[in-house]
Amino acid sequence: MRMYDIIAKKRDGGELSAGEIAFWIAGCVRGDIPDYQTAALLMAVCLRGMTERETADLTLCMARSGETVDLSAIGGVTVDKHSTGGVGDKTTLVVSPIAASLGVRVAKMSGRGLGYTGGTVDKLESIPGLRTALGREDFLGIVRRVGVCLIGQSGDLVPADKKLYALRDVTATVESIPLIASSIMSKKIAAGSDCILLDVKTGSGAFMKTEADSIRLARTMVSIGERAGRRTVALITDMSRPLGNAVGNALEVAEACGTLRGRGPEDLTGLCVELAANMLALAGFGDLPACRKAARGQIENGRAFQKFREMAAAQGGDVSVLDDPSRFPQAALRRDVPARTSGYLRSMDTQACGAAAMELGAGREKKDDPVDFSAGIVLRKKPGDRVEAGEPLAAFHTSSERRFAAAERLFQSAVEIGDLPPRAAPLLHARVTKDGVEKD
Amino acid sequence: MRMYDIIAKKRDGGELSAGEIAFWIAGCVRGDIPDYQTAALLMAVCLRGMTERETADLTLCMARSGETVDLSAIGGVTVDKHSTGGVGDKTTLVVSPIAASLGVRVAKMSGRGLGYTGGTVDKLESIPGLRTALGREDFLGIVRRVGVCLIGQSGDLVPADKKLYALRDVTATVESIPLIASSIMSKKIAAGSDCILLDVKTGSGAFMKTEADSIRLARTMVSIGERAGRRTVALITDMSRPLGNAVGNALEVAEACGTLRGRGPEDLTGLCVELAANMLALAGFGDLPACRKAARGQIENGRAFQKFREMAAAQGGDVSVLDDPSRFPQAALRRDVPARTSGYLRSMDTQACGAAAMELGAGREKKDDPVDFSAGIVLRKKPGDRVEAGEPLAAFHTSSERRFAAAERLFQSAVEIGDLPPRAAPLLHARVTKDGVEKD
Repeated sequence: MRMYDIIAKKRDGGELSAGEIAFWIAGCVRGDIPDYQTAALLMAVCLRGMTERETADLTLCMARSGETVDLSAIGGVTVDKHSTGGVGDKTTLVVSPIAASLGVRVAKMSGRGLGYTGGTVDKLESIPGLRTALGREDFLGIVRRVGVCLIGQSGDLVPADKKLYALRDVTATVESIPLIASSIMSKKIAAGSDCILLDVKTGSGAFMKTEADSIRLARTMVSIGERAGRRTVALITDMSRPLGNAVGNALEVAEACGTLRGRGPEDLTGLCVELAANMLALAGFGDLPACRKAARGQIENGRAFQKFREMAAAQGGDVSVLDDPSRFPQAALRRDVPARTSGYLRSMDTQACGAAAMELGAGREKKDDPVDFSAGIVLRKKPGDRVEAGEPLAAFHTSSERRFAAAERLFQSAVEIGDLPPRAAPLLHARVTKDGVEKD
Repeated sequence: MRMYDIIAKKRDGGELSAGEIAFWIAGCVRGDIPDYQTAALLMAVCLRGMTERETADLTLCMARSGETVDLSAIGGVTVDKHSTGGVGDKTTLVVSPIAASLGVRVAKMSGRGLGYTGGTVDKLESIPGLRTALGREDFLGIVRRVGVCLIGQSGDLVPADKKLYALRDVTATVESIPLIASSIMSKKIAAGSDCILLDVKTGSGAFMKTEADSIRLARTMVSIGERAGRRTVALITDMSRPLGNAVGNALEVAEACGTLRGRGPEDLTGLCVELAANMLALAGFGDLPACRKAARGQIENGRAFQKFREMAAAQGGDVSVLDDPSRFPQAALRRDVPARTSGYLRSMDTQACGAAAMELGAGREKKDDPVDFSAGIVLRKKPGDRVEAGEPLAAFHTSSERRFAAAERLFQSAVEIGDLPPRAAPLLHARVTKDGVEKD
């Protein structure tokens, strides 16, 4: 077998065999296949696509390229959850404890934020003392005992994805549905859960800007998951505006706590109930209406928040900040950003909003940049709200005037105020299962 | 400017600006742009194509990436000629002296053979003593004095092509018309002639298998040449069978000498007259009918052969072998290959025929393999001829029984004998000028 022939086959629109894909991935990880050959093949995949079968084979090869996690010792049904990333997306912090409080096992590895999107690991680390780097035994022990543990991704999981992603990132081959799907799903499969719930974001703040592309990505990922023997469902959810009101690590943890205690913003609470219900349904806890009711019940009776506290404590976190978020370390500068005119807040460019939060210190541009946990944005108005000139649109939390000024420029340019209210955007666009697409 | 954005633009089907192409080529030659980025862009070009403007800009950037040749000191009109390569194509050895004998200046750099196609430099070097590696002054001096000099390509010409070709060769990005055209034309433009005649082969033994692809390549190259200020014409000529009867270095030189003396095979003589006439017309020596007549005249009056002798002598060659080709060193083993059945010779796979000659020792698989100048094939029958079982189809010249046996297997499988004569194939398919395509 020669890499040249594999590249030529894909260049000409052919379908690669399982053996050809295995040859590529193994050679790439071993370093036998030079990067320029992998780069050429990645571009050919970008432009020629891959069938569902090819994509599933690629994903499985990647998943098996390094260590995999065996969760069988935990007992019960394990459910993983993945979001394609957005601005203000703190749902993992809410839905994991809801599901765990009803008996689902959540042994989840998350990522850090990069660019304008946040990451669950950064949010968790804003809780003083909480550790996200745990050994395998500690991790499994907490899941067994508490029912849920959220940690960072281990270094030895899916080396093929690290290698391919690094190359895609510099060769403009990131935007390819088979490559995105295999990157996400290889990590989920290696992480070992029985079921996978995917939250595929769509809209201006999402990686996939259109509903059609989001559905295509979701279908591909569900197909991969099912081919790998994992029950998999995807929700297509809105990211045309930030989710909830808080953007920034400690601010989002505070909002997650509020939501777990039944005092969260409507959009965030609604989505969290929907996600938690789907996790419960995947795990066989009943049909969706029953699972929705159960999820809401765990918020109302306080057990979901209690589960989050238990988990944070088990991971070494200071739970006093969860009980009273005013005890989080506070930003040096807190100042409102006023509306420049009166009217309806028509839209808010989500990506620019995320960039403004990054400017305030909440995110990182490069992998190893430090993050200011206290920095971020709390929105006072969301699209659809009526605003008067001078009224605060948002409160910014940051460390300096310079950061504030830069972020305000970005934020103001991201906001559109007009005479007419905008069309309401649905929060849930569609649900994708192995049986097809249910549009909402 | 970032290479990433250039790759993304081409991936999405955009047209690269002259500045973007210059940034790429300069960075690639300097080594600032890593090979994996160039590989990804090459694949995107392969699949998305390039406009004529982009291709011309790419070619000019490549042509200027290293040394260029200044032929102005020669005086007169310089005409270069390029063939896309085939089996038995010894036309350069015939047409250069014809054109030079009438006053055209031919200062030509040629390549070596690789794979199943031969190269002019190998053919010339089969003439004992003839040097194809000459310094710039010697080269120009011979052109000034004799009117024609044929040498190998200098090492410092078009480094961008060397770099890109090496990458294309291992990333399955060779088969792309803009990349093929820019590779060829960058070398022709750097080589400095006023006019360029292109012989684009089409058919089973050519790089371009269909007439449509050959015409597309020809149009692209003519457009590049004209945009670079060189009068450029392309002939689309047949390579569905070997050209002439001889395949192999010294054997082809002997056939070229015969052709220059008016005793060449009909197909080879006809094509050489047509190519020489087009070189003359490009140089402004009159219209095509007049140039054809002049070219034929130089064969008949012996001046074309005389010019070839003069050139060979000026380059240090032993011209006694030209006067009497039986004085060429002879192969140890010469043996006929008989027809296996009776009928009409319907076709002869040109590529397999070239591979058989290579098997006999006439070609090389890798760049630095040695070549046996005496080895090769002399065809006794060509497609269309009637043959009887046992009658010789060809004579093989080689060094060993082992080589003979391997080559015969290849050759026999390349030959089709049937009851009906084949359709006659035209030798000249079309002529492409800046004004369009004239079909024959």
